[in-house]
Amino acid sequence: MDLSADWIVGFTDGEGCFYVGIYRHPEMKTGWQVLPEFRIVQHEKDIRLLYAIKRFFRCGKVRKNHEQRYEVCIRKLDCLKAVIGFFRRHPLKTSKRFEFEKFADVVRMMQEGRHLTPDGLRKIAGIARRMNTSHHPRLEDIYKELGKKI
Amino acid sequence: MDLSADWIVGFTDGEGCFYVGIYRHPEMKTGWQVLPEFRIVQHEKDIRLLYAIKRFFRCGKVRKNHEQRYEVCIRKLDCLKAVIGFFRRHPLKTSKRFEFEKFADVVRMMQEGRHLTPDGLRKIAGIARRMNTSHHPRLEDIYKELGKKI
Repeated sequence: MDLSADWIVGFTDGEGCFYVGIYRHPEMKTGWQVLPEFRIVQHEKDIRLLYAIKRFFRCGKVRKNHEQRYEVCIRKLDCLKAVIGFFRRHPLKTSKRFEFEKFADVVRMMQEGRHLTPDGLRKIAGIARRMNTSHHPRLEDIYKELGKKI
Repeated sequence: MDLSADWIVGFTDGEGCFYVGIYRHPEMKTGWQVLPEFRIVQHEKDIRLLYAIKRFFRCGKVRKNHEQRYEVCIRKLDCLKAVIGFFRRHPLKTSKRFEFEKFADVVRMMQEGRHLTPDGLRKIAGIARRMNTSHHPRLEDIYKELGKKI
């Protein structure tokens, strides 16, 4: 199945998700791990399409999401960098582009290693808190907890 | 805002809906009215995009859907014929194409005037009943009621 760049943009405008997860991780210096991911979830009947998207980006994994739903999920920083480059060259048309810009900020900060410092991590948590897809009451806690550490 | 054909296909694969509504209508000979429509619903923050889609197809209306959601909706038979022609030239990639094919069958039958006869209408109700987007307990009733008329 051949997918064009414009189809990928349109489908991502509809179904794509730029997500910044922040999880407790005792082995990290800051006590938290930042996991940005780009994912697209579909019913299992369209699993071939998820593999086609994986081939398009030459990145990511296809795995079960929930019940009859599967996702293609891209997490590796180098891969996310390529995904971000793609959506810079082929901009999203919906307001999802604002989520994308915040997501790109987080990935850039991670490439600079700033997620490993309390100050950088607090900034990342602040960005994630303002993302539609990442609203989570816990983010407020992270933000406050990290704030105290500085 | 310029939209390409491939973007429209990708976005429709994600967000588009091919819907066949069948409503009681005492002024119709059969007692029922068939209303196929192609629609895309978005949050009001992306209303400009809905107008851009309307311009792309040179068809349809943008109107409120529910709360903060708006839709672009195409209902006129000639317009639907053009929409169907478009998706024949630029096929959908998801399994939504099967819904599209049933939708196209209904529109074709309407162009032949078959929705005005009990037999044709029963066939249309049978197709609508098998569409994901049109599942409605009432369709079962329509189907039975029309069956009795033949």
